[in-house]
Amino acid sequence: MSFNPSTQDDSVNIYECEVRLKFRIIENKLAIDGSDSSGLIEALVDAYTYGDDEYLEYLESQINIYEIAALDASPAMRRQLIRLRNSRRLA
Amino acid sequence: MSFNPSTQDDSVNIYECEVRLKFRIIENKLAIDGSDSSGLIEALVDAYTYGDDEYLEYLESQINIYEIAALDASPAMRRQLIRLRNSRRLA
Repeated sequence: MSFNPSTQDDSVNIYECEVRLKFRIIENKLAIDGSDSSGLIEALVDAYTYGDDEYLEYLESQINIYEIAALDASPAMRRQLIRLRNSRRLA
Repeated sequence: MSFNPSTQDDSVNIYECEVRLKFRIIENKLAIDGSDSSGLIEALVDAYTYGDDEYLEYLESQINIYEIAALDASPAMRRQLIRLRNSRRLA
């Protein structure tokens, strides 16, 4: 219905994402007990991106993603969004 | 209480892990709508490992991890666990 070549579809937006990964992994007990939780999350996410092998077995992965209003995001993110939209308008 | 130098603590085991990541991301609408869900999970996990910046904002990360019995894992994983334990016993 619009003659504007930049349709709504290529717009940049802010999305809220929830990713849930479930898997089994062969690991050293010390590596599990000794890590702080943020280091452990990083290691597990790394292992997950390396992919399935005899050390790692996927069980489940789920994703929830929805657009949120710019006003609900942080000021830094909102500024970045405005910068991006402006640079697209000029291009 | 044991004189055995290899204590229980450095044993290898099978762990079941559940990682939940929640974050906001600035993204092109096409990239979100156009991806199959496994490609999207990979992209989001990648973005998460690159870290926080003006395009990504962490909200929450949670981790659940618990040891499971070898018998509950797949045959391939069980074989790998036995191989690892044997190689440690010989080392």
